[in-house]
Amino acid sequence: MKDFFYPSSVVVIGVSTVPSNLGKEIARNLLEFQFNGIVHLVGLDGGVIFGRKIHRRLEEIEDPIDLAIILTPAKTVPSILEDCGKKGIRRVIIESGGFGEFSDAGRDLQAQLRKIATQYGIRFIGPNCIGLINASNGLATPFPTLRNVFRKGGVGIVAQSGGVALSFLNMFDSEQLGYSKFASIGNKLDVDESDLVEYLMEDPETKVICLYVESIKDGRRFTELGRKSPKPIVVHKANIGALSRVIAQSHTEALANDDQVVDAALHQVGIARLRDMQSYLDFVKILQLPPMTGRNLAIVSRSGGHAVIAADAAHTYGFNLPAPSPDLLQEIRKHMRADVIKLTNPLDLGDLFDFDVYAKIIRRILQEDAYDGVLLVHTYFAAIEGASSRRLLRSAAAMAQEYGKPVALCVATEPYEVSSLHKELEFPIFLSPERAVRALDAALRHDQRRRFVARQHEYASPDPPPHRAAIREYLGACLAQRRSPLLHEALEIIAHAGFATPAMAVLKDVNELQEVCKIIEGPYAVKAIAPHISHKSDQGAVVLDLENPASLESACRAMFDRFAARDSRDAFRILVQKMAPRQVDSYELIVGGKRDPQFGPMALLGHGGLFVEIFAKGVLRMAPVTLADVDEMIDELPGSEILSGVRGRPAVDRPALRDAIVRVADLMTHFPEIQSIDINPLIVSPAGAIAVDARIFLHTGGQ
Amino acid sequence: MKDFFYPSSVVVIGVSTVPSNLGKEIARNLLEFQFNGIVHLVGLDGGVIFGRKIHRRLEEIEDPIDLAIILTPAKTVPSILEDCGKKGIRRVIIESGGFGEFSDAGRDLQAQLRKIATQYGIRFIGPNCIGLINASNGLATPFPTLRNVFRKGGVGIVAQSGGVALSFLNMFDSEQLGYSKFASIGNKLDVDESDLVEYLMEDPETKVICLYVESIKDGRRFTELGRKSPKPIVVHKANIGALSRVIAQSHTEALANDDQVVDAALHQVGIARLRDMQSYLDFVKILQLPPMTGRNLAIVSRSGGHAVIAADAAHTYGFNLPAPSPDLLQEIRKHMRADVIKLTNPLDLGDLFDFDVYAKIIRRILQEDAYDGVLLVHTYFAAIEGASSRRLLRSAAAMAQEYGKPVALCVATEPYEVSSLHKELEFPIFLSPERAVRALDAALRHDQRRRFVARQHEYASPDPPPHRAAIREYLGACLAQRRSPLLHEALEIIAHAGFATPAMAVLKDVNELQEVCKIIEGPYAVKAIAPHISHKSDQGAVVLDLENPASLESACRAMFDRFAARDSRDAFRILVQKMAPRQVDSYELIVGGKRDPQFGPMALLGHGGLFVEIFAKGVLRMAPVTLADVDEMIDELPGSEILSGVRGRPAVDRPALRDAIVRVADLMTHFPEIQSIDINPLIVSPAGAIAVDARIFLHTGGQ
Repeated sequence: MKDFFYPSSVVVIGVSTVPSNLGKEIARNLLEFQFNGIVHLVGLDGGVIFGRKIHRRLEEIEDPIDLAIILTPAKTVPSILEDCGKKGIRRVIIESGGFGEFSDAGRDLQAQLRKIATQYGIRFIGPNCIGLINASNGLATPFPTLRNVFRKGGVGIVAQSGGVALSFLNMFDSEQLGYSKFASIGNKLDVDESDLVEYLMEDPETKVICLYVESIKDGRRFTELGRKSPKPIVVHKANIGALSRVIAQSHTEALANDDQVVDAALHQVGIARLRDMQSYLDFVKILQLPPMTGRNLAIVSRSGGHAVIAADAAHTYGFNLPAPSPDLLQEIRKHMRADVIKLTNPLDLGDLFDFDVYAKIIRRILQEDAYDGVLLVHTYFAAIEGASSRRLLRSAAAMAQEYGKPVALCVATEPYEVSSLHKELEFPIFLSPERAVRALDAALRHDQRRRFVARQHEYASPDPPPHRAAIREYLGACLAQRRSPLLHEALEIIAHAGFATPAMAVLKDVNELQEVCKIIEGPYAVKAIAPHISHKSDQGAVVLDLENPASLESACRAMFDRFAARDSRDAFRILVQKMAPRQVDSYELIVGGKRDPQFGPMALLGHGGLFVEIFAKGVLRMAPVTLADVDEMIDELPGSEILSGVRGRPAVDRPALRDAIVRVADLMTHFPEIQSIDINPLIVSPAGAIAVDARIFLHTGGQ
Repeated sequence: MKDFFYPSSVVVIGVSTVPSNLGKEIARNLLEFQFNGIVHLVGLDGGVIFGRKIHRRLEEIEDPIDLAIILTPAKTVPSILEDCGKKGIRRVIIESGGFGEFSDAGRDLQAQLRKIATQYGIRFIGPNCIGLINASNGLATPFPTLRNVFRKGGVGIVAQSGGVALSFLNMFDSEQLGYSKFASIGNKLDVDESDLVEYLMEDPETKVICLYVESIKDGRRFTELGRKSPKPIVVHKANIGALSRVIAQSHTEALANDDQVVDAALHQVGIARLRDMQSYLDFVKILQLPPMTGRNLAIVSRSGGHAVIAADAAHTYGFNLPAPSPDLLQEIRKHMRADVIKLTNPLDLGDLFDFDVYAKIIRRILQEDAYDGVLLVHTYFAAIEGASSRRLLRSAAAMAQEYGKPVALCVATEPYEVSSLHKELEFPIFLSPERAVRALDAALRHDQRRRFVARQHEYASPDPPPHRAAIREYLGACLAQRRSPLLHEALEIIAHAGFATPAMAVLKDVNELQEVCKIIEGPYAVKAIAPHISHKSDQGAVVLDLENPASLESACRAMFDRFAARDSRDAFRILVQKMAPRQVDSYELIVGGKRDPQFGPMALLGHGGLFVEIFAKGVLRMAPVTLADVDEMIDELPGSEILSGVRGRPAVDRPALRDAIVRVADLMTHFPEIQSIDINPLIVSPAGAIAVDARIFLHTGGQ
């Protein structure tokens, strides 16, 4: 990727002197940003622009070229790419739109691009993008006309959408955040977000990696990079809902990932995901401060009202506000003009007009071990207190670095002063206490998350191990028949995987019941086995609580009468199970797995039974999982309190539940042919967990 | 209140020529804002300032004075107030701090102020405040030095904290919102937020009433005003948590209300409560647009990425994005330069550079009944497209008024352009699609809420009516003994109130059991009756599921053995109840009431049993309630889905549940001596609801 950002020579293809031509704007931006390499121009009509000749054909240029930027109609791009290949150009940015995001014909063009690129060993960015800006050498390939006004700094920007990428530039610039590298990757047919993250992780000028993506092409690679990254990775993954899909597919051909999968996977590896631009920006801002390592916050304010608002936010986001020590109080009191304000935390300094004293107080607070960080809410009138306020803000920012603790600076002042602070300060400020506190909390949680992820070394293995050979045999037999396992097969597979399952037998005929009853004691459950009966309980194909052989027999007869005729071609059978004992203290859970197209095998824990109606959400993790992952899954399950024992009920058997999750993750990891597994319910009691029903879908489709 | 805002003459008391004197800053602000009345100055040391004499004593002034503004040390204020009274001044603003918010001595001073004010018929604002600004006559009493730069408009500002009030002014000004009246009310010892709301409801210059409060002094009056107000009332009620209380009590002596009560009460009458300044501001901004009357939104954007973000927000906040009709599409297509963007909703106009065409498209969309509003996300480069963009924004704002539908304007552009838009435009703009969509949703919900509130005419009455005389007799007997009802008395009271309760008897002696068993059939529950046993089940004082008279007798003997000796002075007794039948389809709920010091009688619905551990929150309403309120309470209960029947279970008896809530609200309304009621559990089944246990606390304390 470095070759993309540091070319010695570039060619812009698609330049003309026509006013509406966008190719020439790329050349203009290269000049405006003072690109330090050679720039060649190519355009069918030739001519001269910016004092340079526009070559009619790429071949006319004799110098070697490191990077080509193409902005010509979509249908012309494949042959131009081929010309680039022939000329020995190995890095290309294709900015043209009208490809896969637009039509089937565009999709065909994309296939051609891919083929040509492979043939010539070309890596390319796009199509349907505005390419790159490199703050350190002036490479600037976007076609919208830009001015080189953006602050330089440590923020690496990667965005699918060019519009959002430019908004990021503006947004960061307006909040005292400078950029290092900028990439808009559009349809990301070749180079994708993972390539750029990998590069920015090593780019010495980039301190924080900021992404806007509408899909994540290779979720596994992306999360593996995130796990290893020494730099914070901050993601706005848009395109979350059905409504969004309409435009995202057309815009950058994003294949919408299941949003919960994305959430779980990014969380699992410590990549920060922010869901709106505001909290995104605030998070990147707070990352500029030293990290807060605990939840003890001191709030300093001139305005009691702002102190209350800040304390509300501290309360909402779970910060402590330790009271000042007597020593600290005494020092503060020395500085107070009149004794009409109570000294507490939040510290309301309303009566104190000498801002240098504020700085002294903040220094003293930072020296106290009792505080992990400070929020300064500074309300002032710029007309009168502007200069002294800036001195205070600058010294507070410096002290934060000196003491290695965050001092979040929140100002409330006249609008014109706010604008000029944004332009002039070299550190971030916040305009509301809530946003500052929310950002402090997000950064603290991110930091804790990174530490947690760093501690995850060993994936959990089922103990005793599953009978993989037996499972493979079952799956092989099903695949040979191009079908998924039937109910009893699924139960046998998970039994081989090490799940406890009820004693069971498969009946072809009621006459076999006598034998069955010798082996299995009641009460019984009977379930019809047939591929097309998917919601068994809805169709009367499940009968539970059969207390004795007689009731078992009559239920089986009824079931054969009802289904066998219909299902003769499927050789209809009945599963007889010993009913799992119904205990007051047991809960029905769902343990399962799914294979995500981007993020691969996932393990899932959810509520079953009544609670599934209330808690619609499950908890997901990429498989394989660590034991700590599994514990988190259990604790993150909404309403998980009930599993720990409430109102005098005993806790469920957590080791057994853990074991079940580990086993399902193991199945998903070791058997790529499994598309999904549902163990529903897994009945978890204070002593053990038993899988009563199971479904497994293989890649062949069908049950 | 109008006399406060429109005085013909004012006196500022506490003025001196000393540089640090704050009283003279009040005078300076009156000059700066060009107050159109006479200004007198009073200060102990006399002198001349701003070309005016500082009188040493109030009596020196011979002219009549409508309003006095006092900023002198707290201990001097009572006698000054008395001087004002003698001089015939009937409106006073006391800005001095150091009163009840600071110390007990300050609280004594407050009592003096109240007494003097009553004696002379004085209404006063404060103490501990910065008073008023009236945009229409230049009355400006704050002591911080201000510049008269704030936009005038329809926003009435009321804030406890002077600092927050001034922040509101800045914040509104920076977002194209002008103010009409401004009030900082501090400790609100006399004039409170309700007084100001009542005035601003009638003030012709005020279109929306914006409050920041740390407590609500008279919640009932406030909500009654809110219910009647033809203008939107927007509240930031801070001081929500334990952490906040520390500062709020010291700052403006706010008595923290229970936050859930505040939430429920404001919601009930259609007062908008916003919890942070950002959403507050966005909400007030969106109120400047015509109201959106449905959830069908059209999104128009130049940037596909911003369109995706906007669509995500629409998805999150529950908006529909209807596809454009074929007619509309055809007209849009006519304007597109190249056919490389799919036309959907969100409408990505990336390829279209003529902004006048955008305006035409927006007009066409507004003409379509299929859309209730438009979100325009306009990304542009001010250097090149500034003038045409402003033309577009202005024409979109005008069209919104013309068609009576909101066009929310969201821009992404250079920071300097954003600042100048904020200064120059006369309508609000948003800087992120999420914030615009969130505000649209909040306004829509507020509008629906107001309609709902307007439909609430008749409070629900229990039918058949409760036996109020019998209840009054019970309560009177308890109050005579300065105690709350015992368990069996509480059950008898609610039985008289019309609740179904199990058959019961009170035993003084085991020998009475034979008689009891003739009347009550098993199974039985027995409960110890003693005032000090508060958590009965924790102390073994409850035994359930006694199947027959023999087990009942032995349980009662054991209970007498255990408790009677200890409790001889209380004449220990046992309550024998017929056990309510335990049904699979029934749920344990809590129905109750509490009397809030600010908001008065409240009715509550919550989960009992297992679910109370999961759903910690109940649902509250001020009593009395309408039937629609009651239905909302049931539907707003977290997890209320289970009451409507899930997984094949029948729904519970909703009329019976409704009736229970109406009855508890009725009790709270008609018996002010009741401090709180807990009916826990109320067992609700598909056929009826039965109150199994009840507690009633009266104002005397004790059980």
